[in-house]
Amino acid sequence: MTAYYRQTDMAELRRRGGREPEQDSSTGKETTREDKYVDDDIDSDIRDVPPSSDSTPEVLKPVLSGLSSRWKNWWIRGIFSLTMISLFFFLIYMGPVMLILLVSAIQVKCFQEIISIGHRVYRSFELPWFRTLSWYFLLCVNYFFYGETLADYFATSVQREEILQFLIRYHRFISFAFYLIGFCIFVLSLVKKHYRLQFYMFGWTHVTLLITVTQSHLVIQNLFEGMIWFIVPISIVICNDIMAYLFGFFFGRTPLIKLSPKKTWEGFIGGFFMTVIFGFLFAYIFAQFQYFVCPVEYSSETNSFSTKCKPSEIFRLHYYSVPAYLQPLLGRGTVSMYPFQIHSIALSTFASLIGPFGGFFASGFKRAFKIKFNTWMQGNPGINTSLTLPVITRFSCWMFSHGTALCPVN
Amino acid sequence: MTAYYRQTDMAELRRRGGREPEQDSSTGKETTREDKYVDDDIDSDIRDVPPSSDSTPEVLKPVLSGLSSRWKNWWIRGIFSLTMISLFFFLIYMGPVMLILLVSAIQVKCFQEIISIGHRVYRSFELPWFRTLSWYFLLCVNYFFYGETLADYFATSVQREEILQFLIRYHRFISFAFYLIGFCIFVLSLVKKHYRLQFYMFGWTHVTLLITVTQSHLVIQNLFEGMIWFIVPISIVICNDIMAYLFGFFFGRTPLIKLSPKKTWEGFIGGFFMTVIFGFLFAYIFAQFQYFVCPVEYSSETNSFSTKCKPSEIFRLHYYSVPAYLQPLLGRGTVSMYPFQIHSIALSTFASLIGPFGGFFASGFKRAFKIKFNTWMQGNPGINTSLTLPVITRFSCWMFSHGTALCPVN
Repeated sequence: MTAYYRQTDMAELRRRGGREPEQDSSTGKETTREDKYVDDDIDSDIRDVPPSSDSTPEVLKPVLSGLSSRWKNWWIRGIFSLTMISLFFFLIYMGPVMLILLVSAIQVKCFQEIISIGHRVYRSFELPWFRTLSWYFLLCVNYFFYGETLADYFATSVQREEILQFLIRYHRFISFAFYLIGFCIFVLSLVKKHYRLQFYMFGWTHVTLLITVTQSHLVIQNLFEGMIWFIVPISIVICNDIMAYLFGFFFGRTPLIKLSPKKTWEGFIGGFFMTVIFGFLFAYIFAQFQYFVCPVEYSSETNSFSTKCKPSEIFRLHYYSVPAYLQPLLGRGTVSMYPFQIHSIALSTFASLIGPFGGFFASGFKRAFKIKFNTWMQGNPGINTSLTLPVITRFSCWMFSHGTALCPVN
Repeated sequence: MTAYYRQTDMAELRRRGGREPEQDSSTGKETTREDKYVDDDIDSDIRDVPPSSDSTPEVLKPVLSGLSSRWKNWWIRGIFSLTMISLFFFLIYMGPVMLILLVSAIQVKCFQEIISIGHRVYRSFELPWFRTLSWYFLLCVNYFFYGETLADYFATSVQREEILQFLIRYHRFISFAFYLIGFCIFVLSLVKKHYRLQFYMFGWTHVTLLITVTQSHLVIQNLFEGMIWFIVPISIVICNDIMAYLFGFFFGRTPLIKLSPKKTWEGFIGGFFMTVIFGFLFAYIFAQFQYFVCPVEYSSETNSFSTKCKPSEIFRLHYYSVPAYLQPLLGRGTVSMYPFQIHSIALSTFASLIGPFGGFFASGFKRAFKIKFNTWMQGNPGINTSLTLPVITRFSCWMFSHGTALCPVN
């Protein structure tokens, strides 16, 4: 979501992300009370990664050596994106279980990252119990959400086993009891010296849970409705990301928003149209296969997930009459397409118009807490920050910036 | 939940709640970085209410003038509690709609209070848009939750009206769209100078929503299952509150927890046993009336809520055989009681054992953010802080410290 940047060097970005010189000189005793929670350089103990002038991966160096940094960036992005897309398709090929594992892994990784930021921001390294407690809460909330989903899907096969029946019957009670244990431990761990800090971290943990767990839970629920409800939305987001970058790269002139200085209106608008078109195509391609279209159902006989069914109405070809003024253009009076393709237009519109705000939010967050990433691309002037995030973060951007909204509409 | 205090004067509490003298002298330049977010006296701009030596309400003064402050406190508490209990019964008499309004009013008031604390803590008075945005989010989340509940209950009567049908069909989508508008406004309102502050307030708002709205939503859902699921749990909590105070008042010796210095083990244990006994009685009394026992159902014919039904199994008298060793004590071999009374034991146990942690949490929160309450009882040495909260806060303590867990078990 953060890909349609103007071709500017990193200096501007770095200046904005870091503290500006005139502000630096005013810290210390002159800091007014009001500024304390705003501009305090709280992560000064985290060392900056020294900017390297060229951190192109070793393998690519000989090939890319003759290019300007602008085009070098282009090629690195391209190769990087293709690798990730191939990986994505490989995971799809592996089946729904693999996708669930992927979503869960991303969720856990995101949680870990955000909690770490909290620890750094509040310098709460020596807080009693807290790291353990955060993970305990993550476990509880996941137990609750996965239980809710799984109970529906395994309900039939479980009727024989008494323990499982008990777990399902009292699932909410058990989850809540586990959460309460954590809550009580938190209260007991309150130490006078750290009261406020402990409450801050408690809040931080809960907001993190809200962001990561609820979203991945919704994504997984979608996935059970049929893999297409997972794959098409994510493809649309990836497509928007790439298209916006391409349009920004070739035509970008007009800055879009101060928060993300490299994004342009050209990228935003070009991305929008291309996403709608590609989304329409993706929908057509994926809607043809039962493997993608059918709800993921657990069959207790074969003890595995099956994706076989009579496809629902929206995945069967319908004939639509073309409006009169479009008939000369298409050369015919009717077209056949899947109703799901009309869905895809809504999804694309959403991904292109609202999705970027998820990116802006992340961008603002990064600046607010001055997050630095230790990846191999760090500091390369030709490569924008968003691409310097590790693969997993990129995937999670794709997933989370849209996850919630893309519930099946039927 | 904060009522079983030892009979000590307020001096100790005030010393603990406020800053200790030796800490005071170390502020300023000696403050280490680590302490900044912990002990910073952030609400110094909120003036302390000058402690008055006697703030007994005018009406009661002539009656209570001859008593020691210990007993004066006793009588004020007694009168206060009886007034509130009468008020509570009056509201029950007014019917389910009134109770829903009560819960909603408490929710809004709590939200307002906690948001105000956030604004004071972060000194975010001049943040663009934020107060408006917080209330907008409250509206969205309530729209979502109330819609979810109401859609179930009004579903039948609504089938005629097309607009309502549309609202129900796309309820989640509409709610999410509303939320997203708020989200986008937040992102657009981000100002460089305030980034971090704005994200703090965003998090604060969401945690507040989590605490207030989800709980009141669950309380209302319980209420629809039958008013007894609302009344008995709350009565149990009120009972535990009062009993723990009484036991603490007469027998309190051993301090329970540092966080709430006036609570005693005697109050905790005595309160527990009395709550189980009284809860058992409450359950017996309320289970006899259809008015309390029947699910609250909206009938589209009379256009009102009805509470008439054939009571479910757990609200009908059953015969239980008494264990042999208890037979001499009770003088008979069988007893008749409602299965709901057995439920009540679980509820009482929960209210007495886990509930207080809700109180400790609130107590810690109060100290962490040094909240001062401007009620007429403020500063009276004989009256503990928890009672100085206004009626609404007291009710909300009762409601929220247990709301979530007390879902019907059937």
